[in-house]
Amino acid sequence: MRSAIITLTTDFGLRDPYVAEMKAVILGICPEARIVDVSHGIAKFDVRMGAYTLACAAPYFPEETIHVAVVDPSVGTKRHSIIIQTKRARYVGPDNGLLILAASRENIEHVYEVTNREFMLPKTSNTFHGRDVFAPAAAHLANGIEPNRFGPEICKITMPSYAKTAIRKNMLLGEILHTDGFGNIITNFREEEFASAKAAEKIKVKLENRKLELKRCRVYVEGQARKPIALIGSHGYLEISVNKGNAARMLGTKSGDKVTLYLR
Amino acid sequence: MRSAIITLTTDFGLRDPYVAEMKAVILGICPEARIVDVSHGIAKFDVRMGAYTLACAAPYFPEETIHVAVVDPSVGTKRHSIIIQTKRARYVGPDNGLLILAASRENIEHVYEVTNREFMLPKTSNTFHGRDVFAPAAAHLANGIEPNRFGPEICKITMPSYAKTAIRKNMLLGEILHTDGFGNIITNFREEEFASAKAAEKIKVKLENRKLELKRCRVYVEGQARKPIALIGSHGYLEISVNKGNAARMLGTKSGDKVTLYLR
Amino acid sequence: MRSAIITLTTDFGLRDPYVAEMKAVILGICPEARIVDVSHGIAKFDVRMGAYTLACAAPYFPEETIHVAVVDPSVGTKRHSIIIQTKRARYVGPDNGLLILAASRENIEHVYEVTNREFMLPKTSNTFHGRDVFAPAAAHLANGIEPNRFGPEICKITMPSYAKTAIRKNMLLGEILHTDGFGNIITNFREEEFASAKAAEKIKVKLENRKLELKRCRVYVEGQARKPIALIGSHGYLEISVNKGNAARMLGTKSGDKVTLYLR
Repeated sequence: MRSAIITLTTDFGLRDPYVAEMKAVILGICPEARIVDVSHGIAKFDVRMGAYTLACAAPYFPEETIHVAVVDPSVGTKRHSIIIQTKRARYVGPDNGLLILAASRENIEHVYEVTNREFMLPKTSNTFHGRDVFAPAAAHLANGIEPNRFGPEICKITMPSYAKTAIRKNMLLGEILHTDGFGNIITNFREEEFASAKAAEKIKVKLENRKLELKRCRVYVEGQARKPIALIGSHGYLEISVNKGNAARMLGTKSGDKVTLYLR
Repeated sequence: MRSAIITLTTDFGLRDPYVAEMKAVILGICPEARIVDVSHGIAKFDVRMGAYTLACAAPYFPEETIHVAVVDPSVGTKRHSIIIQTKRARYVGPDNGLLILAASRENIEHVYEVTNREFMLPKTSNTFHGRDVFAPAAAHLANGIEPNRFGPEICKITMPSYAKTAIRKNMLLGEILHTDGFGNIITNFREEEFASAKAAEKIKVKLENRKLELKRCRVYVEGQARKPIALIGSHGYLEISVNKGNAARMLGTKSGDKVTLYLR
Repeated sequence: MRSAIITLTTDFGLRDPYVAEMKAVILGICPEARIVDVSHGIAKFDVRMGAYTLACAAPYFPEETIHVAVVDPSVGTKRHSIIIQTKRARYVGPDNGLLILAASRENIEHVYEVTNREFMLPKTSNTFHGRDVFAPAAAHLANGIEPNRFGPEICKITMPSYAKTAIRKNMLLGEILHTDGFGNIITNFREEEFASAKAAEKIKVKLENRKLELKRCRVYVEGQARKPIALIGSHGYLEISVNKGNAARMLGTKSGDKVTLYLR
């Protein structure tokens, strides 16, 4: 049997011992687990950035991977701890929208609340569920414990606004999902959503109150200096970019801003 | 047999190749070792922060784990290299107080100086004992070499001030052990030391020359905006925190500052 | 059989999901590979720093290690993707000088271009060969695929200037290879190159237009406060350092600056 892969995505940073404590707990319960860091550099409390980052990485992992994510500003309140079982993977973390962007692309089969104290650390803190609840849950899943033993199945989970786009007349309504380190503006429009606009040479968008007509490119270097362009980035989302420039700074955008795409 | 876990705690950062060299040496000697990073983001030469970080993480690792720590401003001088054998783990590093905070909570059984060149790299540099002395020692321990084969047993090791608190009249005297990435101020007062103050709703402290009366909370979110609160953090130390804010920046504190807690 | 070790050296940083995607691809193809990070903190597009970092770490890894490096400002252009087979290891990455500093110390046996799409991800992006070309190549090598199956053997590869020093009269001419996290100035002079100067108590150097006479030390702590010293660092290169200080900041140097060493 192949040993299970467990991935970690958090806003803990790498300076503090928090990530190591999660790994220690996992290895104590499932010594042969293979732990892979997705990122611990999610901006503090930025659930959307965590959701985006996990959604980028998850499709590249083998089937049966267990993904743990912890960006959890409401730790210690009544927000649920959940396990999402999809067709190809399992996701463990808080029910605050962090897991849904990755999980929803893989056919969600079941969602369970994690309530069974048998699969938590004996002494559960109020401030660090990553170590006390989510890490042990992942390790027990890796040991073959079925998801339905962790708690009751639930049918409603938190749906963040950034996980959905809407069609209105000839418009696709969405938002900016992420601004990457190069200043590329990554929207939540996926390639398959604007098929009719696909063949066009120009893409028309509205960013907050500003209308733009963008040349549609295949790679960054096709763009002219200081001219924003549109392309499909390496994770399948529509990006607005400036060749060798910083699109987000030039256009004054930030994550969460509304975007409209005109389908014609 | 389960493969040994070796943890690493250093001030090397992740930009330079130093950490990778330690891992390379370990895997060359003990190919099946499982290496886990505790932190490589210890502030340069900050032995206290290294000691704190290791002490936080160590209790969560399985028994028999081998912890290597290297924050070593005196590398190349006569400071000893040591192995501390405790009831549940082994610690490898310089004798400068770095290991003692973690090891002293686990019943120290033996301390050995590392002098046997048979268990070092053939060519030992004067500047990088992490790679040339400590990493090979850990890997040989992982291979089953007994600690007493590395050198003579010693009975006196360096005892840092930050490992102790003192009681004077109704006051508990200590210091700030660490400021974490969220700005939480972590004191060296452990929950069991202020049992009498425990039931109180308010905690009175003096931080350098500033007296504060802090609401005692169970979780961060109980705090009001911009109001420092007191709570027991996830490692059992008293913390001073600000909900969704940065307590250390707001109060102008730094690690090493004296703290007084009034027990009443 | 021991499972293969695959190392990663990139300029991707640890915030974005890119490194995790490479690891995911590797583990999907070769589940038992042991992945070790050399560094993901190479400055963006700084091929020299990447080459130096890999050259430092590589000799400490066991034989048969597979090293993947990606600092790739020309991704998507016609630069070749290569595999270098040396006497003790294999190197995978772009042909831009990144691999040569490490590989050339180990007797290069063969160099192959990577052109066989059978060993790439099915959908290869124009912007991320680390994930789509180099990670799969390394994983297939780890699975035992022979290097000559990836593409044609080639005999000319890119040779960077920083891999060589020159002797003129009594001078050794070189450059600053790297500035480490402690501010140590690492030159490209190797210990064996200045044997005649070796016994001297003073080392004379010129850094850009500034002449310095440096006390030759064995360890950092022999240096006086604020006085630059010379010593052989732990990788065999001549370093200029300041005990408990930052030599590069004090002397205003940067990587790539010319250095002259007077041999007398």
